[in-house]
Amino acid sequence: MIKPSIPKGTRDFGPVVVRKRQYIFQTIRETFELFGFQPLETPTMENLDTLTGKYGEEGDKLIFKILDNGDILGRAQQAKDSRELGILLCEKALRYDLTIPFARYVVMNQHELALPFKRYQMQPVWRGDRPAKGRYREFYQCDADVVGSNSLLNEIELLLIYDTVFTKLGMEGYEVRINNRKILGALAEIVGQPDLLTDITISIDKLDKIGMDGVKKELQERGLSDTEITKIANFLNISGSNEEKLQQLGVLFQNSPTGLKGIEELSYVLHTQPEAFKTTPILDVTLARGLNYYTGMIVEVKAPEAVKMGSIGGGGRYDDLTGLFGLPGISGVGISFGVDRIYDVLEELQLFPATAQQGTQVLFFNLDAETTGTAFKLVMQLRAKGVSSELFHETSKMDKQMKYANKRNIPYVIIMGESEVKEGLVSIKNMVTGQQEKIAMTELANYQF
Amino acid sequence: MIKPSIPKGTRDFGPVVVRKRQYIFQTIRETFELFGFQPLETPTMENLDTLTGKYGEEGDKLIFKILDNGDILGRAQQAKDSRELGILLCEKALRYDLTIPFARYVVMNQHELALPFKRYQMQPVWRGDRPAKGRYREFYQCDADVVGSNSLLNEIELLLIYDTVFTKLGMEGYEVRINNRKILGALAEIVGQPDLLTDITISIDKLDKIGMDGVKKELQERGLSDTEITKIANFLNISGSNEEKLQQLGVLFQNSPTGLKGIEELSYVLHTQPEAFKTTPILDVTLARGLNYYTGMIVEVKAPEAVKMGSIGGGGRYDDLTGLFGLPGISGVGISFGVDRIYDVLEELQLFPATAQQGTQVLFFNLDAETTGTAFKLVMQLRAKGVSSELFHETSKMDKQMKYANKRNIPYVIIMGESEVKEGLVSIKNMVTGQQEKIAMTELANYQF
Repeated sequence: MIKPSIPKGTRDFGPVVVRKRQYIFQTIRETFELFGFQPLETPTMENLDTLTGKYGEEGDKLIFKILDNGDILGRAQQAKDSRELGILLCEKALRYDLTIPFARYVVMNQHELALPFKRYQMQPVWRGDRPAKGRYREFYQCDADVVGSNSLLNEIELLLIYDTVFTKLGMEGYEVRINNRKILGALAEIVGQPDLLTDITISIDKLDKIGMDGVKKELQERGLSDTEITKIANFLNISGSNEEKLQQLGVLFQNSPTGLKGIEELSYVLHTQPEAFKTTPILDVTLARGLNYYTGMIVEVKAPEAVKMGSIGGGGRYDDLTGLFGLPGISGVGISFGVDRIYDVLEELQLFPATAQQGTQVLFFNLDAETTGTAFKLVMQLRAKGVSSELFHETSKMDKQMKYANKRNIPYVIIMGESEVKEGLVSIKNMVTGQQEKIAMTELANYQF
Repeated sequence: MIKPSIPKGTRDFGPVVVRKRQYIFQTIRETFELFGFQPLETPTMENLDTLTGKYGEEGDKLIFKILDNGDILGRAQQAKDSRELGILLCEKALRYDLTIPFARYVVMNQHELALPFKRYQMQPVWRGDRPAKGRYREFYQCDADVVGSNSLLNEIELLLIYDTVFTKLGMEGYEVRINNRKILGALAEIVGQPDLLTDITISIDKLDKIGMDGVKKELQERGLSDTEITKIANFLNISGSNEEKLQQLGVLFQNSPTGLKGIEELSYVLHTQPEAFKTTPILDVTLARGLNYYTGMIVEVKAPEAVKMGSIGGGGRYDDLTGLFGLPGISGVGISFGVDRIYDVLEELQLFPATAQQGTQVLFFNLDAETTGTAFKLVMQLRAKGVSSELFHETSKMDKQMKYANKRNIPYVIIMGESEVKEGLVSIKNMVTGQQEKIAMTELANYQF
């Protein structure tokens, strides 16, 4: 008999963890709904060719493919290498993110959808990454996107969703940082290297990790001159309040139409409904976000400084996502929540409310067969009132049942001895305080647990 | 450009369907929690050898295997047939049901769990069946099981969970039918063919589909004599109220210890808390449930007669589930909800409540740039009150926005013309009745939508 195990990079979620995760999902879901976003769920399996080529060469290698059923030996024998073998043997693959299935769905349902289509999606995705601390092969993504609208009101709404969710979660000290890809495009222009936009973006993206000197060195390696690098460094040093930064950007990009457009978009987002935010977004010109497809605002949420957890969410505006599936010209903007990291932040800051951790509220002890029937009726009464309750499954000694209550963290136990039942009473023991009181059986359903 | 599609047997769930499904899941989840069951989630991928050999030879063929990443060409060349190829190339596979992963989890966590462990699990499973009407390759299972307790109180609790869920869902006319495997075992004994228990069970299981004559014919083919078949037919003809059936069984099995034990268990389940049930379970001696591993009570829920949908749930007591993974002697009992069929029943009987179908409640029209800011503030006020609201994403003509509201089934629209804003008023239009009224802007947050 082999000792059972689970594949590396995957996790079992026991009762305590599921409840806390549900609390996060529920908070995000409620907020998405409040803002008029609509739920979508796509299949775990997509056709392999829906996914291939969408995540770069490295991404393609990390896609989990599903072996076709049936007689496949002949096909296997035609393969010249492992990559080809995968294509020959697998028609289907596991969802790698929520964005491509969303684009695929929009294209398939374009004639029924009311545009703009505001959808949210909360489902697991799978990637064959090497497992590491905080990196799993199966993990949830929570995305909200709007497609079919160029209006910057969508950007504001998505930032407000972040604001609302993190406020509801009680997470103080988080930061919502925004920038605009047009600003970075204009930077590449005024530096005189518009073709190196991607290189510049990728280098800037590492500022947090490798520092200014590291970025300078990398830019040098990527072929930029000292003068060009100085211009970029000056840009990265722009600081002050949002207004001061906007002003400095205005001076820097006064002759760049792209730059001015970026500034205009940032100003609109920051100035249109400033008082709607509980935590004002911070303009961060060094924010780059590696992915190539962003074209307008980009956003990243940083966990409170104290927990050293980095990004807990991010997103931005992209053009032409559905073009990949033959429907060009549809712009979109979206955000994503990093649920695993949010979980770790709430855990570390002890922000999970008691209700997110509570299972059974009341355990009825089952001490002798005579009182079982009465106890059962009371259990059903409490359940009818919405109080999660259990009757111990068999008559047994008090200490065995007490041990069960403790192990399960059940906050109240009800003890019904023969004498108590005769008098029409029950004893309620608060397992946290240790206090015990007797009340009339008829009052139990109204007791405040 | 290939027209995008999804793998056969899988489904996209759009907003309307997700909301209705959520309503079913939420109702079941709440009830499980009310009865003190605890949530568990296991990974989508299990090690292939955790699953192989657990579902019979036919089941093994239907397991979806996941191709290992990396250099696998050499391994492929060693395979002599397709089955071996799958084993050589795949370490992991998709969850096939929730029971085996649950057993695996119990064994892995046996030292931490408080027994009895009452867990529920609501997750998708995957099977390579040929897709057909109502048969999918990806579908949800919703299971509740108790392991580590022989007490028949668990059977009663699980039957009450069915009772509670279907009552909450408003489903009148459903039937909870129960039987006991010991009764069927005793039948095989008194027929004189204890070794043919499985054959007898499988034949009886088809009574609904092929009728009494069909069952008789099949029993004949399986090698039973006319006398033996008559005994079985007499058993299957047992009828009347639960009490009358119990009495007839008592006579039939008066000399069979196994039979009497089965009758005792059925009586306990039916007699201990009869008034707790809103719909009394029906003793159905013809209920067999094909699966072999049941050893005690078995249960099946039948959809209301009117919808011709058959079984919408089932379960029973089994012994020694975890023995497969090296932990013998742990008894369990569980039930399952068939969510896809429940969905179809609720749809056909129009039992989904309005709240399960409602997305955005209120759409604010965006008619001119001057009033956008005011409208935005009112939207945020309604959201703060928990009313799901949207501001149309851009200023445009009324009819375009009206079309959007209609397509999205939004029940209320708010119209703020320039003159209305000047007077501090808004117009509320009820899109269902067509009625329109003006109220003060300051009163909007208190309006009953």
